[in-house]
Amino acid sequence: MERVYNFSAGPAVIDESVLQKAASELFCYPGKGMSVLEMSHRTGMFMDIYNSAIALFREVMGVPDTHELLFLHGGATMQFAGVPLNLLTGSRVADYLDTGNFAHLAAEEAKKYGTVNTIASSRADNYTYIPSLAGLLFTPEADYVHITTNNTIYGTRFVALPDTGSVPLVADASSNILSEPMDVSRFGVIYAGAQKNIGPAGVAVLIVRRDLLGKASPQCPKVLDWALQSKNESMLNTPNTFAIYMVKLVCEWMKEAGGVPAFYERNLAKAKLLYDAIDASKLFTNPVQPQYRSLMNVTFVTGDEAKDDAFCKFCQKNGVANIKGHRNVGGMRASIYNAMPMAGVQKLVDLMAQFEKEAL
Amino acid sequence: MERVYNFSAGPAVIDESVLQKAASELFCYPGKGMSVLEMSHRTGMFMDIYNSAIALFREVMGVPDTHELLFLHGGATMQFAGVPLNLLTGSRVADYLDTGNFAHLAAEEAKKYGTVNTIASSRADNYTYIPSLAGLLFTPEADYVHITTNNTIYGTRFVALPDTGSVPLVADASSNILSEPMDVSRFGVIYAGAQKNIGPAGVAVLIVRRDLLGKASPQCPKVLDWALQSKNESMLNTPNTFAIYMVKLVCEWMKEAGGVPAFYERNLAKAKLLYDAIDASKLFTNPVQPQYRSLMNVTFVTGDEAKDDAFCKFCQKNGVANIKGHRNVGGMRASIYNAMPMAGVQKLVDLMAQFEKEAL
Repeated sequence: MERVYNFSAGPAVIDESVLQKAASELFCYPGKGMSVLEMSHRTGMFMDIYNSAIALFREVMGVPDTHELLFLHGGATMQFAGVPLNLLTGSRVADYLDTGNFAHLAAEEAKKYGTVNTIASSRADNYTYIPSLAGLLFTPEADYVHITTNNTIYGTRFVALPDTGSVPLVADASSNILSEPMDVSRFGVIYAGAQKNIGPAGVAVLIVRRDLLGKASPQCPKVLDWALQSKNESMLNTPNTFAIYMVKLVCEWMKEAGGVPAFYERNLAKAKLLYDAIDASKLFTNPVQPQYRSLMNVTFVTGDEAKDDAFCKFCQKNGVANIKGHRNVGGMRASIYNAMPMAGVQKLVDLMAQFEKEAL
Repeated sequence: MERVYNFSAGPAVIDESVLQKAASELFCYPGKGMSVLEMSHRTGMFMDIYNSAIALFREVMGVPDTHELLFLHGGATMQFAGVPLNLLTGSRVADYLDTGNFAHLAAEEAKKYGTVNTIASSRADNYTYIPSLAGLLFTPEADYVHITTNNTIYGTRFVALPDTGSVPLVADASSNILSEPMDVSRFGVIYAGAQKNIGPAGVAVLIVRRDLLGKASPQCPKVLDWALQSKNESMLNTPNTFAIYMVKLVCEWMKEAGGVPAFYERNLAKAKLLYDAIDASKLFTNPVQPQYRSLMNVTFVTGDEAKDDAFCKFCQKNGVANIKGHRNVGGMRASIYNAMPMAGVQKLVDLMAQFEKEAL
């Protein structure tokens, strides 16, 4: 069977060259006599892979030496607890910006461990925008301020960062990490599940300013204790070795293709193609305030559930998969992460035009 | 390069037929147009894989309907916290049997969440045996009793289970699950990191008696909350989809080859071949009390560090990898999990004889 264009929100499309390399080495890693799946994480052969993954990710993302980089078990949801367990231990107050379902869940999880102030929310408007950053009332003594840089379900993104002064800014960047330049030095913590732009599911990337290590609650499970994981190079216990290997391959592919700046250009062009098609359409609309449109997750609806359904089926039949929107928004969602080629977006836009012609 | 015989304690050898199947489908899963790495966990195509993995694991392991089966993030070490966070919430007292490094670490982690009574220990004797189960002083009101059924580092195993009456027995079975018959009905909980007998690293199997669900601490991170994960079919968040797929392949392979009874027979024969060679040797000895010898992890030493080192290098040169023992024991350790063929053990035994002839 031919491969389809896969617009899944995550786990998501991986570049074909990366998949081919992984497939070709899966039975026996070159020169090592065993599969990467069989390598002890304590051996030099795996540490070489781990160190390459770390170095390449640092280079591609631009992670400065002031920040530690770890590959931890679980996804971002595990870090919804990891963040407060590691940081909500001073004043035990944190500020959260409620800009989507995952932002909301992150705040709910943090409430188990301290006081959460939701200082801004677009929940009442079904998260169709990012609340204005002007005049936000931060808690001066807060342990941190938490944002979600891109909202996967709703298709919005922060286009500027809040100025939190000396309070560390913590960001869940699961759905836009590596897709656009990010000035890591402005963040105390960036975390992200890998299964969108970084690799397969089951591992989270954690970037943490080193001076924020060592503040974990005594009740923090040790696998979630960032300082302990830092001391152990992400290997307090057996890490997700295969996922770390895949991160290495993805970073190699990105570096070869020009790194984040090159992907950002491509992502802008892909998003423009799709949003322009939606804006020109008489059938499809995008429910998001234009200035907050995500470059990664593009939501669109017809306003008629039966037509939405018919369009999703039409796509499926024509080699375009996973275009159905999240139930919270309905309609369609096209996730156009780094590994989605322009040709895939063009195919989708063509199908939209064809469907519209037949439907109207 | 040819594949070597890999005696790693974990991540560990995987059967060649399983690796070949995984490699052949990695670029594009048959009939689905995408890699298993790219499948959304919310789609029918992945749920088919998940449901097959669950059904096959239940069948191969003999998990009765009284017990839930989950595939959770992280490994056993994550569940060192998961166990007390889910169960140490009644009397807040638990009994632990200290039979090895991981048993010890499990108890240390539980102390964060309640009172731990170490009711037996072989720590003072470098864990060379399992303490006698006769006359153990259980805490009558304990929330659970915790054991480690096989001690990976020291090469010992429980040959009988403690009778804990109405107190649930909780077992870390990471290094002998699926290698010998286990009567699951005798356990409240069995958990295991996958990377020895089940599949790749980054996922843990959790088997829990259903009446023990719903007792989690309010401070339990939700990804570790077994009842929530049960309600969500292990998908409270994106699971380690690739590892679950690999578990399915491993279970298919095991079922095809006769299931646990067939592997148990093979494992007994493999262990006998190796222990007999050690017992007949004038150079190598096994430091463990014979009645507690593990079928999975066989430790042996020469008593001379330089000779141990020379033997490990000799093995490496001759296609036998990862034979070096854990630093706590020294010498050598051969992990002979289900996927290690008899031919691999025979090769090791031959190398031992050859080395001994040259060394003495």
